[in-house]
Amino acid sequence: MSGTREAAVAAADWGTTRLRIWLLDSYGEILAERRSDEGLLAAQPDRFEEILERHLGEMGASADLPVVICGMAGARQGWIEAPYASVPASLADIFGAAVRVPSAKRDVRIVPGLAQRDADRPDVMRGEETQLAGAVAKIGSGRHIVCMPGTHSKWVDIVDGTVAFFQTFMTGEMFSVLSGHSILAHSIAKDARVAAKDPHFANNVRKALSSVAPLETGLFRFRAGSLLHGLAPHDAAAALSGLLIGSEIAAAKALFALADSPVVLIASGTLCDLYQAALGWAGMDCITVDADEAVRLGLIHAARELGMIKEVTG
Amino acid sequence: MSGTREAAVAAADWGTTRLRIWLLDSYGEILAERRSDEGLLAAQPDRFEEILERHLGEMGASADLPVVICGMAGARQGWIEAPYASVPASLADIFGAAVRVPSAKRDVRIVPGLAQRDADRPDVMRGEETQLAGAVAKIGSGRHIVCMPGTHSKWVDIVDGTVAFFQTFMTGEMFSVLSGHSILAHSIAKDARVAAKDPHFANNVRKALSSVAPLETGLFRFRAGSLLHGLAPHDAAAALSGLLIGSEIAAAKALFALADSPVVLIASGTLCDLYQAALGWAGMDCITVDADEAVRLGLIHAARELGMIKEVTG
Repeated sequence: MSGTREAAVAAADWGTTRLRIWLLDSYGEILAERRSDEGLLAAQPDRFEEILERHLGEMGASADLPVVICGMAGARQGWIEAPYASVPASLADIFGAAVRVPSAKRDVRIVPGLAQRDADRPDVMRGEETQLAGAVAKIGSGRHIVCMPGTHSKWVDIVDGTVAFFQTFMTGEMFSVLSGHSILAHSIAKDARVAAKDPHFANNVRKALSSVAPLETGLFRFRAGSLLHGLAPHDAAAALSGLLIGSEIAAAKALFALADSPVVLIASGTLCDLYQAALGWAGMDCITVDADEAVRLGLIHAARELGMIKEVTG
Repeated sequence: MSGTREAAVAAADWGTTRLRIWLLDSYGEILAERRSDEGLLAAQPDRFEEILERHLGEMGASADLPVVICGMAGARQGWIEAPYASVPASLADIFGAAVRVPSAKRDVRIVPGLAQRDADRPDVMRGEETQLAGAVAKIGSGRHIVCMPGTHSKWVDIVDGTVAFFQTFMTGEMFSVLSGHSILAHSIAKDARVAAKDPHFANNVRKALSSVAPLETGLFRFRAGSLLHGLAPHDAAAALSGLLIGSEIAAAKALFALADSPVVLIASGTLCDLYQAALGWAGMDCITVDADEAVRLGLIHAARELGMIKEVTG
């Protein structure tokens, strides 16, 4: 086995519902990859080490391979708490505050999340700080406005690798609770796959971008549209998705006073397509970075900052 | 028994979860009143007549007393569908379209709801049109902007007894789904009683009134506030209530281009106190009409329009 193909570190993104693990060589190339549903919820309260070791064993990792982890594994209810770093925080500050799991047999470090302790605009993230680091490694320093869509979308103002301000939008979760638990549940298809080219998606993004208070005034219209105009459940799902994403982008545009510099969009798959289209309709260019790649690059960045990767010799 | 104390009509507000019935004399004075949890959900699919007759019997109503009903009993999934009247609609148009229940032993009429069939702003109400009629009976004709807070708050522009436009806000339901089914559930007290004088309520109403996109940017802050600043669950409930009510009022203010004419607030109890305070902080005067009284007056108005009340003689 050549030096460059030897695993230098294992990297894990351990979220609430999902776990992803990669074995990486010292250049950050992927040697092996695993995805599992053993997220925080499945691993609580004390199965973290057992789950990690089983996956590493099955991937053929050596017993002394170090592991760097980001995400909810570092929450208070996780494996061990990695207390939030506070904004303004540089990526080096954040990774420097990683916490070692004292009970683990091997060197396991968990990257902290980020907290904005401002009394009027408190906010937290855990996992996205690592994606940010990965994106910066790709796009370079300078000032960037970064959008990371998801259950809790994060918009971040980052200047030369230092996070100045961020804002969470509960866009994905709003879709889920409104379509699952509100009166809108009667009108909206379950598990609908929404495409960016769906006219109901596009129309509602545009409406949200040009309306006063779109979230307040727009939601019940899907119920009324279903009763009065026979709005089909799949179309209503696309419409709700458009309204929510459009509202998020309109709000972020106002909050971050976005002008003509492009937004960095860290996302994958359909969500990436939807946001890319919606940002375009809002007149905003975007540079996309794949979310999976971003978190992996960020974890490598963290491992290097923490001196966990042995330099390749010979 | 004197003529004025004889029941002239029974009036019922039959909503999704609640049923209220009054026996009224020809002047609209209350002779008897019943409240029950046998709303639409309990009465479906075919218990409407049985439930109504039992209550009327227990209240001592004669077998030929006519009954006027508003609310969800007239929905498609109700006792019999009373198809929506369409805006613009006068109160006389609405009540004139009441539907008689053909299977009922006595004269039972159900008042229709109202539909706004506009393709861009579809909306519906059922029950609130009757409250509106009751409020107009109290405050007179002219132009009024009326606010009826609740699970689905309704704001209505009514001119000389004709409904020109209305808008639903899912404020009450947003509180319920967010505090019950989202990540905020961990941070918000169940069944909290929020008071208008609670500083967390007041601060969040004011914040919502003065912020850009308060609903989009404000919600996750309660989660972060609980993690970072120990925001107590009861305080978070008051704060969420304030944010949602403040957002509704800010949106309505913009949508209805509200200037200096007062808002007519149809509400009862705590909800009335909360909205009255919040409207005041938004610089809007309000005239309040008790919601229970409004629906009763509206039902009497409907019964008269429909010729169901025998005029008192002698």
